[in-house]
Amino acid sequence: MTSNIDRSNKAANDTGDSSNKAARIHKYQNPLTIEKIAKPSITSGQQVLVKVAASGLCHSDLHLINGEWKDMLTIPLPITPGHEVAGWVEEVGDSVPQGILDKGDLVAIFGGWGCGVCFHCKGGDEQLCKFATWPGLSSFDGGFSEYILVPSYRFLIKVDKKYRLKPEELAPLTDAGLTPYRAIKKVRHLLGPGTSIAVVGIGGLGTYGVQYAKILAPNSNTIAIDHSDAKLQLAEKLGADRTLNLKECQDIKSEIFKITEEKGVNAIIDCVGAEETIRDSARILSKSGVLVVVGLFGNQIGIPLSSSVFNENQVQCSFWGNYNELCEVIELAKQCKIKQIVRAFSLNAINEAIGLLRSGEVEGRAIIVPE
Amino acid sequence: MTSNIDRSNKAANDTGDSSNKAARIHKYQNPLTIEKIAKPSITSGQQVLVKVAASGLCHSDLHLINGEWKDMLTIPLPITPGHEVAGWVEEVGDSVPQGILDKGDLVAIFGGWGCGVCFHCKGGDEQLCKFATWPGLSSFDGGFSEYILVPSYRFLIKVDKKYRLKPEELAPLTDAGLTPYRAIKKVRHLLGPGTSIAVVGIGGLGTYGVQYAKILAPNSNTIAIDHSDAKLQLAEKLGADRTLNLKECQDIKSEIFKITEEKGVNAIIDCVGAEETIRDSARILSKSGVLVVVGLFGNQIGIPLSSSVFNENQVQCSFWGNYNELCEVIELAKQCKIKQIVRAFSLNAINEAIGLLRSGEVEGRAIIVPE
Amino acid sequence: MTSNIDRSNKAANDTGDSSNKAARIHKYQNPLTIEKIAKPSITSGQQVLVKVAASGLCHSDLHLINGEWKDMLTIPLPITPGHEVAGWVEEVGDSVPQGILDKGDLVAIFGGWGCGVCFHCKGGDEQLCKFATWPGLSSFDGGFSEYILVPSYRFLIKVDKKYRLKPEELAPLTDAGLTPYRAIKKVRHLLGPGTSIAVVGIGGLGTYGVQYAKILAPNSNTIAIDHSDAKLQLAEKLGADRTLNLKECQDIKSEIFKITEEKGVNAIIDCVGAEETIRDSARILSKSGVLVVVGLFGNQIGIPLSSSVFNENQVQCSFWGNYNELCEVIELAKQCKIKQIVRAFSLNAINEAIGLLRSGEVEGRAIIVPE
Amino acid sequence: MTSNIDRSNKAANDTGDSSNKAARIHKYQNPLTIEKIAKPSITSGQQVLVKVAASGLCHSDLHLINGEWKDMLTIPLPITPGHEVAGWVEEVGDSVPQGILDKGDLVAIFGGWGCGVCFHCKGGDEQLCKFATWPGLSSFDGGFSEYILVPSYRFLIKVDKKYRLKPEELAPLTDAGLTPYRAIKKVRHLLGPGTSIAVVGIGGLGTYGVQYAKILAPNSNTIAIDHSDAKLQLAEKLGADRTLNLKECQDIKSEIFKITEEKGVNAIIDCVGAEETIRDSARILSKSGVLVVVGLFGNQIGIPLSSSVFNENQVQCSFWGNYNELCEVIELAKQCKIKQIVRAFSLNAINEAIGLLRSGEVEGRAIIVPE
Repeated sequence: MTSNIDRSNKAANDTGDSSNKAARIHKYQNPLTIEKIAKPSITSGQQVLVKVAASGLCHSDLHLINGEWKDMLTIPLPITPGHEVAGWVEEVGDSVPQGILDKGDLVAIFGGWGCGVCFHCKGGDEQLCKFATWPGLSSFDGGFSEYILVPSYRFLIKVDKKYRLKPEELAPLTDAGLTPYRAIKKVRHLLGPGTSIAVVGIGGLGTYGVQYAKILAPNSNTIAIDHSDAKLQLAEKLGADRTLNLKECQDIKSEIFKITEEKGVNAIIDCVGAEETIRDSARILSKSGVLVVVGLFGNQIGIPLSSSVFNENQVQCSFWGNYNELCEVIELAKQCKIKQIVRAFSLNAINEAIGLLRSGEVEGRAIIVPE
Repeated sequence: MTSNIDRSNKAANDTGDSSNKAARIHKYQNPLTIEKIAKPSITSGQQVLVKVAASGLCHSDLHLINGEWKDMLTIPLPITPGHEVAGWVEEVGDSVPQGILDKGDLVAIFGGWGCGVCFHCKGGDEQLCKFATWPGLSSFDGGFSEYILVPSYRFLIKVDKKYRLKPEELAPLTDAGLTPYRAIKKVRHLLGPGTSIAVVGIGGLGTYGVQYAKILAPNSNTIAIDHSDAKLQLAEKLGADRTLNLKECQDIKSEIFKITEEKGVNAIIDCVGAEETIRDSARILSKSGVLVVVGLFGNQIGIPLSSSVFNENQVQCSFWGNYNELCEVIELAKQCKIKQIVRAFSLNAINEAIGLLRSGEVEGRAIIVPE
Repeated sequence: MTSNIDRSNKAANDTGDSSNKAARIHKYQNPLTIEKIAKPSITSGQQVLVKVAASGLCHSDLHLINGEWKDMLTIPLPITPGHEVAGWVEEVGDSVPQGILDKGDLVAIFGGWGCGVCFHCKGGDEQLCKFATWPGLSSFDGGFSEYILVPSYRFLIKVDKKYRLKPEELAPLTDAGLTPYRAIKKVRHLLGPGTSIAVVGIGGLGTYGVQYAKILAPNSNTIAIDHSDAKLQLAEKLGADRTLNLKECQDIKSEIFKITEEKGVNAIIDCVGAEETIRDSARILSKSGVLVVVGLFGNQIGIPLSSSVFNENQVQCSFWGNYNELCEVIELAKQCKIKQIVRAFSLNAINEAIGLLRSGEVEGRAIIVPE
Repeated sequence: MTSNIDRSNKAANDTGDSSNKAARIHKYQNPLTIEKIAKPSITSGQQVLVKVAASGLCHSDLHLINGEWKDMLTIPLPITPGHEVAGWVEEVGDSVPQGILDKGDLVAIFGGWGCGVCFHCKGGDEQLCKFATWPGLSSFDGGFSEYILVPSYRFLIKVDKKYRLKPEELAPLTDAGLTPYRAIKKVRHLLGPGTSIAVVGIGGLGTYGVQYAKILAPNSNTIAIDHSDAKLQLAEKLGADRTLNLKECQDIKSEIFKITEEKGVNAIIDCVGAEETIRDSARILSKSGVLVVVGLFGNQIGIPLSSSVFNENQVQCSFWGNYNELCEVIELAKQCKIKQIVRAFSLNAINEAIGLLRSGEVEGRAIIVPE
């Protein structure tokens, strides 16, 4: 069986008629090329053409642009990256049920485009579909452009105008704001009164992670861990109960056991995924404690065997989030429960934004805006 | 928002071109009319036209034909009933992904046609969609006919020919064989060694229920309860460890507590749903025991308050099953783990079959075959 | 097998040596007799003698005093009622591990005294033990006295003095403050952003229920339901997002569906348990919605069958709470997250307190204090 | 807080009065000394003296005797090892509830002796108590002797004589027969029809693991993995659907993906815990697949990061089992659902048995029998 997604959104891009400015990878490790390509057009009844309003720039984009994933993912170049996208409905296919989407509606694009009929899709986790594709990370063009073609209305979430949610705030929710939400939902049942949760790495994902920890486990002690004082101060503003600077800390285990009354941490969300952060985490977990890995910086998850078995520890990997989880995240944003730190760049300035992200100079999320 | 299903499959039926014999309700409480109507034709890209091979006849059809549900369900007459359908692919719409369905493929039709984008649909439970429709139980014509139009390939499950599963065996799995499976999955975690499960009512659903009890909870004591010795003998053949004839039993509570070493029953699947069966169940549940109601015979679920609270009992209602659960049931059938008792009737003899079902003279499931 | 609890704490009471003032039931439906009985003494190594500091007066005590439970519970008269008890350690048996309890330590008494070795006890739910006994509700004397003998240190939770938690605040946590906590934990997984929870009956349990709803499900809309404006105003102070006065409401279903955007309520905690409140709840549940019954006012739980099955609703009964849940509740109190409304009465004034509770004139919880 | 266990069972051993033959470690890496020590006597009311009938010899005993755990565990030498013990009640303390244990009763000893009041103990997982001690692996003498003193009747499970379960079959259930049971219960919900489970290492634990896979997940494909044909043949006899010899297999991934129709394995129970077995497991897991580690041979659990995150894989460590799980395992044995391969050695021949186990020459479990 092959993917059931209606076809690529690519073909139409190659024959130019009306204009669509896009930032594209033609060759790995090069700056993106900003160019005019064809505006995609609807070729199948369930498709929706979206006018891009905002697209988040993610560390994954750096991995992609650097060519680090060229063997793992099958991506025909040139490709328009950008997988965190919000925009306005421009045109809908003729099989889209009437009345659910109108031209001009603000929509978030759920980025895991599954086949729709396999076990994972039918269970609600399309992002885990074996045949899943992703805008900007597969043969489908992504959101660093003026228009994006979405293969089915099933991947859109409409946001009513009454909520005054800006596209720049909506876009990053679809990945940076979604991934740590799913991660913390996996361990929430462990986090009653008297427990603690640590969020490691207070960057694009961690700033959400700290907030979700307080939202989903308000009675658990939230500990933010990083090696930057600026980021830890930010974590405190976002609700962290305690902070721990890895640079200043002599022995993370003794520090954490002091904070947690000798119990260790019940759940850790590692937004970095480096070998050192994982090694540290294994030392500070409580009995039955769970490490959830969402960061992708390292190559290996390594924890000691005997103590992990005696303590019944777990490592759970968590990937992106599903459609219903994205709906919940957007609901939180509608209720103004999420503080977002975003910095907008125009599409023409995307290579500058990439440079700043690479050197760690972007606080919060960089957002690319077409005009 | 309204239903997202592509449209009714009804319209095409009304303008006859090529022939489609069907058994239809024109007026409640009358026999079905067997007549030739238009063969439905594909009007939207995701649709699939299925040549019906077999359709199960269900107690729900009797409720429908009797007019008992005319206020609860919105059904424009005339309608072709039949919601347990298997058949062969006849034609596919042009948005159906290539290679997944070919003409002649044997398919089971999953009967809960949800909108595809609400919380329940996105969580995998389309049968619970607020906008769900059903073949033969809504504005969509069902399976007591030669052809049925299915609104999307997403509702079909293909069965490879190598498994030698007959359509008459496949059709009843989509409801009678699915409903008790979901019901028992809800309580399986309670059913370890040393526990017991009761299946009440050994009819169309209960014959599957007894088998799933042994399949999903093989270390739990399975007790079949009915008031017919013939049905209890059948239950024994299907694997029940114990049987209890309600007619011969003086006091169900003392009988059950004897069988269960004074613990009571950990889980009960009530395939009848009459007020008496529910009252009996409340008396025989163990501490923390759960009653799952799937039968629809009565009007009211009534259990005593104080003892239910002190014992922390639960009543869980369970409705039909979802797509993944149907896949699992069909997988069990492929592995020859389900014994099915079916009796085939030709479409012309459907009113005779209805009469026999009404008078309780059908052992197992009556199946209508277009011939 | 019979109960494993070390023996009754009763025997010692009958042979007087040193003094122990107590309020006792000698005859049902009579006022309590305030009298001096023997101070209990330790007869087995694991026992702990506790000097009572405060004992909550509960609707269950009224049921008991009225004689309503004389057939259901086996209680030899005379008995000292009082099952919500906090006090100070007076003396410990010689098998109590050294260093865990010292004279003068403030302790809460967990009231479900199980056998310790059955499935429920070994699974952490001693309150569900078939052989469970309860102070003041079994052959064991309760807390409306100066001293109470606890059969094992395993039933005590020590509260460090640094938390400044008063005994009058600690006592009601062991039942009124525990029961709704367990109830809401059962449904918390249903209560993400965009959902709603209703608490029915804003009395002794409901005032905690509203708070736990906001603590355990902060992103769910909390709706308080009662027929007293005063109680609903209190609910608002305690955090309820919406209130509904049953007296003023024409049609609860249409009101609730308006509030919940036509979805219905995802979870209801019924702290009343009357037949009308249950009937109302069945009407306002959402698809897959769950009703948790903790109140004990009525005789019967009755919900309509067909709609409950089609909507897959559940009724879960919830009884008291377990030891770990009580630890969590006390942890919340230590963190000052629970507002408690208590009114203290001296032991000599207990019959007056009973009268006020009976006529609905006690706001929050009445607490009996020995001296 | 310190451990609440009533005291060590050690003290009494040092003052000899009546005889108790025991095999003891006086010095690590030496053969055990077989000697006569004092028969332990009851010093606290809840204790039970058990006449040992059979004690399993475990790889953990080899680790202990080799001195490998001398830094991790605090064990004062000399010590009598043996943590898998069954025997007959010899004498009970005066606080043991009457009627639950009589002299001569056959009992299994649950080996995780927790404090009884911490979060883990109160939640039913005493084996995870921070203060847990173990017979033969702590300051408590174990079962390689004629008598063993058990600190509380709460750690015993009585087996009625009617079941004809032999002590040699009962003893190994308390660890070898318990550990894989808990491991598989953790993943059972993943193992419906159409899935697969692998058991790695068909030794003392794996022979049970294969059987539990078929008992707890009868509709999942059970794959036994080892590098010995003899052990794989044994696995087949015990119910494995497929076997895989690591020595003969070119590429484990391609073999497994062939067997599982390109899906990978949904759950793996690693009874070895070597770095290679874990590396292999990471390669053959399905999407969302879970590796449960119970074996203790290696030092490190290492899995690749990116693919584990993209596939949302999990590593769950599982340690021993709890009391209720042991009750379930014994229930299965009573029902004759577990085949056990045991080989009995007399206490005098224990060093011979140790040698055979070390060289891999014991099929199934070596059992030490006192006389």
